[in-house]
Parts: sequence; C-alpha cells; structure tokens
Amino acid sequence: MSRLTIALDMMGGDHGPPVTVNAAVRAVTDSPNLQLLLCGDRPQLEEQLKNYSNYPEEALILVHTEQVVTMDDKPSSALRNKPRSSMRKALELVQSGEADACVSAGNTGALLAMAYYELKTLPGIDRPALISSVPAQNHKKVFLLDLGANVSCDSEILFQYAVMGSVMAEEVEGIAQPKVGLLNVGEEQIKGNDVVKHTGQILSSLPSLNYIGYIEGGDIFSNKADVVVTDGFVGNVALKACEGLGKFIISEVKRLSQKNLFTRLMARLSLPLLKKIYNRVNPDQYNGASLIGLRGIVVKSHGNASSDAFLYAIQEAVHEVDRQVPTKIKDKIERLLMERP
Amino acid sequence: MSRLTIALDMMGGDHGPPVTVNAAVRAVTDSPNLQLLLCGDRPQLEEQLKNYSNYPEEALILVHTEQVVTMDDKPSSALRNKPRSSMRKALELVQSGEADACVSAGNTGALLAMAYYELKTLPGIDRPALISSVPAQNHKKVFLLDLGANVSCDSEILFQYAVMGSVMAEEVEGIAQPKVGLLNVGEEQIKGNDVVKHTGQILSSLPSLNYIGYIEGGDIFSNKADVVVTDGFVGNVALKACEGLGKFIISEVKRLSQKNLFTRLMARLSLPLLKKIYNRVNPDQYNGASLIGLRGIVVKSHGNASSDAFLYAIQEAVHEVDRQVPTKIKDKIERLLMERP
Repeated sequence: MSRLTIALDMMGGDHGPPVTVNAAVRAVTDSPNLQLLLCGDRPQLEEQLKNYSNYPEEALILVHTEQVVTMDDKPSSALRNKPRSSMRKALELVQSGEADACVSAGNTGALLAMAYYELKTLPGIDRPALISSVPAQNHKKVFLLDLGANVSCDSEILFQYAVMGSVMAEEVEGIAQPKVGLLNVGEEQIKGNDVVKHTGQILSSLPSLNYIGYIEGGDIFSNKADVVVTDGFVGNVALKACEGLGKFIISEVKRLSQKNLFTRLMARLSLPLLKKIYNRVNPDQYNGASLIGLRGIVVKSHGNASSDAFLYAIQEAVHEVDRQVPTKIKDKIERLLMERP
Repeated sequence: MSRLTIALDMMGGDHGPPVTVNAAVRAVTDSPNLQLLLCGDRPQLEEQLKNYSNYPEEALILVHTEQVVTMDDKPSSALRNKPRSSMRKALELVQSGEADACVSAGNTGALLAMAYYELKTLPGIDRPALISSVPAQNHKKVFLLDLGANVSCDSEILFQYAVMGSVMAEEVEGIAQPKVGLLNVGEEQIKGNDVVKHTGQILSSLPSLNYIGYIEGGDIFSNKADVVVTDGFVGNVALKACEGLGKFIISEVKRLSQKNLFTRLMARLSLPLLKKIYNRVNPDQYNGASLIGLRGIVVKSHGNASSDAFLYAIQEAVHEVDRQVPTKIKDKIERLLMERP
C-alpha cells in the first residue's frame, strides 16, 4: 500500500493545537500508512507533542505557518490578508500535490473562499458544495447538500449537486444507485418554485441518475432518499433548525425533570439516550462536512470539534482519497452531461 | 358580551364529522357566547350529533353543503369545481359577514386558493401567509411565517410578513414590542441572498418595528426572537424537517430500547416525556396554523387533527376575533408604510 498524505490545519477551530495534535497522534498511531503534514505554529505544536510518546514520529511532519484565520475573519479578508495562515498552507499542499487531502476545523466561510481560490472546481462543476450525512431510519445515512456554500442556486448548480451527492453516497457509503431526492414543499409535480421545478425536469431526463422526485422536509430523516438536494440557504437553515430542536428537547427534558421525583428519574435515565441520538443528528460535530466539487479533497470539521470529531474528519479524508471522490465526480458529471437532452 | 359566530368546515381533514362534530359540541358547551355554523353534509352531521346530549343545541346551526374538497384535490381544480363544498361555504360565510371567522382541517392548498379568492387580502398586503407558533426555551412561543403559502417571496412580501408576524405575537400572545428576526444562514450583515439582505435593510429602517436582525435556523427554538420571518419554501422545509427529526428521535428511542432490559426500561420511561415535547413542536397537530393577511380570519387545523386539536383551532379563531387581528394588521401596515424612507 502506498503512503497517503493529509495536510491538517492545526490552528483552526475553537480549541486549536490541544485538540488537533491529539487527533493527529491517534490517527498516525492507528494507520501505519498515513503521513500527516501539520500546518501551524511550530512552538505550539512542539509543546503539545511533548505530551505524547509511543507514536510514529516520522509520520508527523511540522510545517510552520505564521498566521491564523480566526472564526471572526470575513472570507474575503482572510483570502486577502492571511496568505501565510495554517489554513491556506494546508490547501496549498493539496494544490501542489504534496498532500492528497486536507482537513480544517476553522472558519467555514474562509475555508470555502480559500479552497475555491486554491483548488478551483472540477470540469463541469461551477460551484463547490458543503455536504454531510445525517442519520435516517433503519440505520441508513442520508447525504444532504448544500449546507451553506451557495445561498442562491440555479437549476444547473442543483443538477451538479445531485450528481456530486450521488457520487458521495455511492463511494463513501457504498450505496449502489443511490436514490436522489429534490427537497421541496410537497411531492406533487406542481409544487415548488421555478428553480426547483426546472431542476426536477433536468434530473428526470437522466437515465444514469436514480432520481426519485421531490421529497419534503419531513422525509430527510426517513430512508426515502439516499441523497437530498437543495440550495445552501434551505439546507443550512433546515440542518441548523434540527440542531436547535435537538438542543431544545434536551433543555426541555432537563426542565421537566425538575417537576417531581418521578420525572427527575425519568429525565436522568433518558438524557444519555437523547444525547446519543442528538450527537448522531449533529453532523458538523460528529461527521464533519466535506467540501466537494473541487480538484482536491477538503474536509471541514466543526469549529467546536473534540479530538474524536477531528480524528473522524481525518479518517473521512482518508476514505475520500481511497475512493478517489474528485475523479469519480468528474467522470460522472461528464457522463451525465452527455445524457442531457 | 355579543355573540360570536364561527363557520366550520365539517367535512375537511382525514376524519371528517366524527372529529369535527365532537369538537363543535365541546366548543359551544364551554362557551355560552359562541355560535357555530356547521357546513357539511346534513345527514352525516345529524347522525353524529345523535351521540351527544346536554349541549346548547341552538348554538349549532347546520348549513348543508353538497361537495367535499378532498386531500388530493389540486387547489386550482378545487377552486373551479367545488363551489358548493363545505370549505367554500365556510369561507363565504366569513366573506358575507355572517361568520366572524372560519376553521377548516381540509386540504391546505385548496383552502389557501379559496380563501384568497373569497376574502381578498388587506390593503397593503399582497399575499396571505400561513403562520404558526413553535415552543421555545423559557416557556416562550415563537411565531414562524411563512409556512408554505408562498414559495417565492420578494422583499416587499417579507416586509409584510414581518409586520403581520409582529401583530400576531402582540395580539395573540400578548407580547409588547415583539422581537422580529429574519431567518438567514448567519448573523453577520454580509450573509444571505439578495432578497434577505434587502429585506434586512427595509426592516432596519422602521422605528415602530422591533427588528433584531438576522437569526439562524438553530435559534428558532431559542427565545432570541418572538417572530421569525422567512419565505414559504424555507419555512415549510424547516418546520417539516423538525417534525421529521421528532419522529426519528421517537423511532430511535423505540429501536434502542430493544437492546436490553435496562435500555427498554429507559425508553419506556422517556417516551411519554418525548411525545409530550414532540407534540408541542408539531404546531399543525397541536396549535393549528392561521392564514393571515386576508380580510377575514381563517384558521387551519391539521388534516390529521384529533377533536382536541380541532377544538383548539376553534378557540384560536375565537381569540383572533376577540383581538381583531385583521384590523390590527391593516392599521400596523398603514403606519409602517408611512415610516418607510
């Protein structure tokens, strides 16, 4: 097996090196074929590495960077003013071919802007998308995109998202002929706005895409579709609303639990179960999201990611490299563009 | 106190007369000043009424109608082909002034089309909206609109929604100077699409509106805003996604509960609590939604509404009549249009 190299933005996220170094050490300990390029402030990284022993030291290569993109940086300003940041360096290493993929827990908007600038989109793809999976009934996973990369999408962009989502479900989850649904306010043909209706017509015309038609918000968590396509505004709001509901339910359980001894017991017992389910529903936290449609692999871990979550994001990047996701997207979009009437 | 008259579409919804008659009987038993005009198939209504005694019979007036709008009827076809339906009659009674408001559990699309045609919009309002409240932290309620009446909205429509939502929160919930938030993908000024940005500019310019800026999907269930404004596509998807998540959580609790004796006990104990919370989050089921912006009051109960839910919808209609919601909307939109630069 050839060695696989992933560049990590070690300074991104709310926690920075204490979390990212821990995840990096565990990643190379688990995977002998993995090499990690740790982009960040060398003294801070060395300081953190002192806490670990018994790991393959040669698998971690420090790449010193001077700047840090903060969570408050505007995307345009980060792109202009932080050319020597750990985030930018990690992306440059992918662009130059020194790394096969990169992972960051930093500012999403800045990562999008820099990744788009550094890596460019694949042929046939106009805009990258942010994609993640949410759990669904019967142990299934459902891929949802776009989660906020593009707030205004025309039918061409939504068509490209459908293709990219289908490739992700097939390659990352191993689903043959993934069912692709288009998010809408109803299932009937006449429902929806013009962009959605037109997208539905395009998707229906493609024999190689398993398009199942419109699906409603209520069906995201069912196993009706393997891929749910929508624009970044709707996807972002829907996903965050669900996260908000999860938090609300947990706070309600806590509140109701204070009523009497019985409800207190009930809540004490049900909270771990609820948190377990809630963590599955919160993909940013748990799964990481992938930035797809680029000529390179970029995985975004949550800003508040724990070292478990950051480790998971590294593994996700490895998996996407193994499955050659960008090449598969390029091939599939080429094929489907030829099928279009 | 003068008598208050509400017209009911007795045939709408999945259950029809068995549920609607039960709710009607309970409503007039509880409220001596209430008169209900029961629009529907007279023989079926009389048959159901035989099951009840000890209620003020003179408060229930049967209005025979021949047609029924089904859940599958397309809005345009219902409007054209069902002029003698119970739904249409209930709306006509509001239009003619014979009823102060109407309630239906029938086909939402058909109700929207017929209500718009029969009642017309208030001066200053271009399109009616579907509004409902969801629970939020600290025992608050948050009004969310639009839930699907208009899938494409420009800034003028969103401005009108903000005004209408503000009036509903003030009159129905009794909140002074309700905080109005505009749903967006982030809280920063630069976020969002052009329609949302332009709407934000309009709302910021109005001294009489307590506009608090953008809010994210995750904050719908917090008590950050009393009113959350968005277009019908986003509102519909977000609300249904939350309902879907609620169902998913309940099914997961059931599934996990089968693992062993301890988890089974845990789930058994937590399910009633979860269902209680879930029912609060499912506004269609519990609260009913109101169709606002019209020259008359129309309350929509869920198609699958129980008699409790239909009774609640009748009480909601009574409340809106008491608070003269349409007049308040007309006054407020007039005042705010004058404030606009």
